[in-house]
Amino acid sequence: MSHQALGTDTRPAPGLGRVATQLIRLYDDAEPLLLTGGETLAPVDVAYETYGELSPARDNAVVVCHALTGDAHAAGHHGDPAAQGWWDTMIGPGRPVDTDRFFVVSANLLGGCRGTTGPSSHDPRTGTPYGLRFPAFTVSDLVTVQRRLLHALGIERPYAAIGGSLGGMQALQWAVDHPGELAKAVLVGVAPRLSAQNIAFSAVARASITRDEHFAGGDYYGTGRAPATGLAVARMLAHITYVSDQALERKFGRARRAGGEGFEVESYLEHQGAKFVERFDANTYLYLTRVMESFDPFADEAAAAARLRSGGTGFLLVSFDSDWRFPPAGAREIERVLHAAGSSVRHEQIASPWGHDSFLLPVPEYLDVVTKFLR
Amino acid sequence: MSHQALGTDTRPAPGLGRVATQLIRLYDDAEPLLLTGGETLAPVDVAYETYGELSPARDNAVVVCHALTGDAHAAGHHGDPAAQGWWDTMIGPGRPVDTDRFFVVSANLLGGCRGTTGPSSHDPRTGTPYGLRFPAFTVSDLVTVQRRLLHALGIERPYAAIGGSLGGMQALQWAVDHPGELAKAVLVGVAPRLSAQNIAFSAVARASITRDEHFAGGDYYGTGRAPATGLAVARMLAHITYVSDQALERKFGRARRAGGEGFEVESYLEHQGAKFVERFDANTYLYLTRVMESFDPFADEAAAAARLRSGGTGFLLVSFDSDWRFPPAGAREIERVLHAAGSSVRHEQIASPWGHDSFLLPVPEYLDVVTKFLR
Repeated sequence: MSHQALGTDTRPAPGLGRVATQLIRLYDDAEPLLLTGGETLAPVDVAYETYGELSPARDNAVVVCHALTGDAHAAGHHGDPAAQGWWDTMIGPGRPVDTDRFFVVSANLLGGCRGTTGPSSHDPRTGTPYGLRFPAFTVSDLVTVQRRLLHALGIERPYAAIGGSLGGMQALQWAVDHPGELAKAVLVGVAPRLSAQNIAFSAVARASITRDEHFAGGDYYGTGRAPATGLAVARMLAHITYVSDQALERKFGRARRAGGEGFEVESYLEHQGAKFVERFDANTYLYLTRVMESFDPFADEAAAAARLRSGGTGFLLVSFDSDWRFPPAGAREIERVLHAAGSSVRHEQIASPWGHDSFLLPVPEYLDVVTKFLR
Repeated sequence: MSHQALGTDTRPAPGLGRVATQLIRLYDDAEPLLLTGGETLAPVDVAYETYGELSPARDNAVVVCHALTGDAHAAGHHGDPAAQGWWDTMIGPGRPVDTDRFFVVSANLLGGCRGTTGPSSHDPRTGTPYGLRFPAFTVSDLVTVQRRLLHALGIERPYAAIGGSLGGMQALQWAVDHPGELAKAVLVGVAPRLSAQNIAFSAVARASITRDEHFAGGDYYGTGRAPATGLAVARMLAHITYVSDQALERKFGRARRAGGEGFEVESYLEHQGAKFVERFDANTYLYLTRVMESFDPFADEAAAAARLRSGGTGFLLVSFDSDWRFPPAGAREIERVLHAAGSSVRHEQIASPWGHDSFLLPVPEYLDVVTKFLR
């Protein structure tokens, strides 16, 4: 198919001030997306943003892959300076992912709820939103769609893929699945696979969502009701795992909430939950947590090593000492496999008190190592 | 009032095989319980069990204080060998709390749901269960009721109080509030106060309960419905914090569940949640988590130290290296204050892979240090 631009095509203004999210149809009935599990999906539309300019040689693309709850809006703002992108610390003129130098592509993931086709999208087979009839997919499928978008933009070989958490998992899976494509990959706050504890936390989040009285087996769209309670509780829980014990202690300690029973940390979590349900779809949460759990690129370590060896991708791994969701041990495990495969790999364990969320924060040493690696 | 025995009075059989829970009225309208917050409560009935024999000098009583979700049934069984007490590893003939030597008293806590007066009890003012009209209370109030029970049993000065988690907090509060009463106190897996992260986890659990469609502002009794979904999710979440990352990894890893989507660790948590809602009341969960959060015996450290100095209680603190709910640092903080107060204190940090739950498990070194301390 010819990739059909569905949305606006406003180019980013200098300095990334005003950036429009664009929509493109990447798969249709004539050429559906073939998923790892064997199912096909069509149509597939992808919401994305770009920053900077593609070089004439088309060799300066950097793909930004978002984490569980991200979206295409990674940098700049849409005319509202309060609505900065989620990785504004990382992306922009003179920043580590330097838009004076790189052409940056940031897409909402397959299965997402921020423009890209996902469980809340219209299912042409039923005439209703997919809900839980949306097919299962994997990190490899996320990469497949990222690559398709790049091809549509005229890019065969991106210079780099970069992401934190599930975003970093995509960069690693890309290097394993498509050796030779990525010159560089930056993996921040990742693990080679989820631990039983990681899965356990997500299991509680999913239980909270699917047992919500308004979940309705996933078919809550158009009912005027949604499993907002379950999703808010899921987010409150997940948020605890994104921040370190010491960060919570420093920020809140045992401060009591003004004018009510309980503590300020409770108000903070409740606020996180309430904000989240305004922007996120519960079914996407279910699917993307499952995607993370299926991630296991080194399940056949010898095969993965052979592919990596042939690929020549250079890796930067960044971990944070206070990250207890994906602790440095996971990055060390990835480092070991990459090293054994003969890959060029550098692992920087950064001191930061903020836990897993550090990957989104302006931690100077972290931004510095990414800057140097991409230079 | 004369303490009125309300229940059976079966003495424990030799070896603690058959133990009946007994019920006693400790406070009534003539002599109500005066709570820390200034409110009064009557009647107050307490469910308890005893093991072993009280010495003629009445100087061999050991008070077992239970944690958040425990009950009076700490040891032996009620004719059902499958229903062993929750601390059978600790209590019995020849065990650390040796029933050949000690008279052991174990009561369901004030506010509980296993026989003792709590939110599910009949409120004589309204003629309905208390629900959220049950008054707020503190660890000091738990201790007040424990002491009243002992007095009813003819005991003025127990030899020791022992408990894990909230149980250990009661033992510490007892020593601070009533100096000179306890010869010994054993505090296992405790902290001098809850951290912001501790509070955060409980806040999510409470949100899950109070937002359950069947919570009905706490007045779900007699409706045939209860906030079972919210309570199950709360338990699933709390359970993750009771066990260590490595224990979950060792037990489940990434094992898939047989015949279904997902992982075995999910089935395990779901089972924990389902079992819990059969035996526990959601309002009690709300109240007792708040009680833990109000615990802060060293808020006025100088005053607490002065009281402890006058009391002469000897302390054993036990922490477990893999306990991330109440890590060894909390026990060290208690140790510091007790030491500064001139108390006799010993802190044993035990290597155990099982996390906070270690306090309930047969960890030989742990049982050994308790045995030696109580000898």
